[in-house]
Amino acid sequence: MPEFFNVLAPDIALRTLLERLSIRMGAETVPTHLALGRVTAEAILAPENLPAFPRSTMDGYAVRASDTFGASESLPAYLEVVGEVSMGQPSDITLAVGQAAVAYTGSMLAHSADAVVMVENTQAIDTTSIEVFRPVAPGENVVQVGEDVRHGETVLPAGCPCRPQDIGGFVALGITQVKVSRRPRVAIVSTGDEIVPPDASPGPGQVRDINTYTIAALVQKAGGVPVPIGVVRDDYEAQRQAAVKGLAQADILIFSAGSSVSSRDMTVQVLNSLGTPGVLVHGIAHRPGKPTIVALVEGKPAFGLPGNPVSAMIVFGILVRPTIYALTGCTQPPQSTMVQARLTKNIPSVTGREDHVQVRLFDADRELHAEPIFGKSNLIYTLIRAAGVVVVPLDKGGLYAGEEVAVQVYD
Amino acid sequence: MPEFFNVLAPDIALRTLLERLSIRMGAETVPTHLALGRVTAEAILAPENLPAFPRSTMDGYAVRASDTFGASESLPAYLEVVGEVSMGQPSDITLAVGQAAVAYTGSMLAHSADAVVMVENTQAIDTTSIEVFRPVAPGENVVQVGEDVRHGETVLPAGCPCRPQDIGGFVALGITQVKVSRRPRVAIVSTGDEIVPPDASPGPGQVRDINTYTIAALVQKAGGVPVPIGVVRDDYEAQRQAAVKGLAQADILIFSAGSSVSSRDMTVQVLNSLGTPGVLVHGIAHRPGKPTIVALVEGKPAFGLPGNPVSAMIVFGILVRPTIYALTGCTQPPQSTMVQARLTKNIPSVTGREDHVQVRLFDADRELHAEPIFGKSNLIYTLIRAAGVVVVPLDKGGLYAGEEVAVQVYD
Repeated sequence: MPEFFNVLAPDIALRTLLERLSIRMGAETVPTHLALGRVTAEAILAPENLPAFPRSTMDGYAVRASDTFGASESLPAYLEVVGEVSMGQPSDITLAVGQAAVAYTGSMLAHSADAVVMVENTQAIDTTSIEVFRPVAPGENVVQVGEDVRHGETVLPAGCPCRPQDIGGFVALGITQVKVSRRPRVAIVSTGDEIVPPDASPGPGQVRDINTYTIAALVQKAGGVPVPIGVVRDDYEAQRQAAVKGLAQADILIFSAGSSVSSRDMTVQVLNSLGTPGVLVHGIAHRPGKPTIVALVEGKPAFGLPGNPVSAMIVFGILVRPTIYALTGCTQPPQSTMVQARLTKNIPSVTGREDHVQVRLFDADRELHAEPIFGKSNLIYTLIRAAGVVVVPLDKGGLYAGEEVAVQVYD
Repeated sequence: MPEFFNVLAPDIALRTLLERLSIRMGAETVPTHLALGRVTAEAILAPENLPAFPRSTMDGYAVRASDTFGASESLPAYLEVVGEVSMGQPSDITLAVGQAAVAYTGSMLAHSADAVVMVENTQAIDTTSIEVFRPVAPGENVVQVGEDVRHGETVLPAGCPCRPQDIGGFVALGITQVKVSRRPRVAIVSTGDEIVPPDASPGPGQVRDINTYTIAALVQKAGGVPVPIGVVRDDYEAQRQAAVKGLAQADILIFSAGSSVSSRDMTVQVLNSLGTPGVLVHGIAHRPGKPTIVALVEGKPAFGLPGNPVSAMIVFGILVRPTIYALTGCTQPPQSTMVQARLTKNIPSVTGREDHVQVRLFDADRELHAEPIFGKSNLIYTLIRAAGVVVVPLDKGGLYAGEEVAVQVYD
């Protein structure tokens, strides 16, 4: 088959693209509370110490630790209570030897205090004196200035997707805006003479467009912005126009190629016509993703995904998702959920080809089992009925029933 | 400590709430392309067969399979080619015995054809006749009517979050709108005399509000809508007003309680004042989540989360997140990513208490290792520096260095 002159392993196909990719998304500034999932465009440094003052971590009494050394149930230390430091208030108390001040969880430490005795380890004698039954070490039950994070320390490196705790760490330091990578825009062109929009009534021989919608959802989940261009017939000029339009509006172009060989050849011609270096990869050593095209046109990545919706989704995960993250400078994309399960049936494959096989998951004998869903790979409902996917690696001829396998769970 | 009169195991605390929870979110109709992550409010049934016509899965020739029986390289079957069925076109061809029609991947099958011979297994003799070198069985290389999904079959049950492939399955069937559960609205009240908003310059003794922002992000990730009510002082009337306002606008109320004992007691009084049955759980057998309050007021769940941001985030995951999903009727919430790792240090705990311990992850000796991050649990940066969390279950007194542990990865 002349169309597959250069079939590459999936990871080599990805590397072939990424090592030629020189563009990165520009940065934009967003309010911190809208930064969830966005990728930091620069390292964020702490503009101040956190906490900015020494805080008690307990309800009790701020003390000079040395005043409690040797204290016990039988021989308590007696301390004079000279006041309290209320929540949210600066300390206006300085402890002399033998003195204590009431402290609350989160309140500022009295001056000259270096530890806090928990209230449970004390007994009030009267309104101005207490007994302490246990010694505390200097620093005990206290958070020191800068103990959470120090002024100038890196809060989050560049290239990290912001998690809820990172947002909390930013606001704690008064960082109310963060510089993040722009979301890559991904143009999606669906091609094929048989494709009609979802709200149309397909005639005999026609089917509704699936790929625009599944790919748009996958783009969104990967942190990109889908830019649907629409359905285009198997006509070179029409496809070229759609591709030019997509590239003008987006950072990545996806062609959901027609299913037949001639239609895939047309996608190659279109992508090659758009700029250099053009098509880099034509065909990957993968089932069901073999008829995949990877191109780079005037610096922008372009993909011809298989027309079959199942293959298109799987290849998106292998090639397009990592490219979206690479464009944002994200070094560690969120990982898929993996579970270990016992395989119920043999999965035949071929050495030198990577296979993605859909599986159902079920519990039996206190163990998770993975049941392969065989059948024609172009049925979208194999994906809907699947809980996840098992990968047969390139160097294996298959997997055996009874083996423990890693299942990548769909979420 | 009188405040913890009724410390429950975390899972029992959750069950105590959920089994009393009688309300569910109402439904709303959204366009299918906006349904990503939304939870189906009813079972979605297929309104038609998919595919609606028999389709070829290969480029080749539609044939009557019986005409190819016995064909081989040395004794090929000769067939007359009577036309082609183009992509997207109805078949206007009916095959007689000994006839074939050109077929494309995805094209409609010619009438009376029941299989497709791959083009690779044929040889054109002239423009109207071919040799076939391999027999095909009836149904081979054909997708039958309804083979993907049958008219009336359940496409997706009620209570399922919509994944990209589900959206693809809907549009394939012309389902352009879906009925989903409304997103639960979650009111967030941050309390404490020491708390100031993130854009303020905190004076000595004051700290910026973290919990409103971390909890809002967690609500969003769980499919809810955060409704921030603001920071409220440790004053009964002010807190009660904020709680009433929150409950009026939301389906769930979260109080980020002050850190001191007296402030937590106030939260209990406020929640009990709002309606029956009031506080159900006061304290859970958990570190660092012990000072947690769970209430049900006039049918709506209300939580008093620990003021300490780390504890608040962890307890959110244990109690609030499952409650958000329960309100939407979601039976199988998306799971957290889990990885297996070798523990580098002992983690001490106490039987009868569940501990969540932050860990760093690193590779060494070709194995993933989990290094516990000890230190004061109220430092938000322990969460930021952590890659995930290890749970020490209720029935264990700790975990040992060298053990293989499951790490729930933060995403």
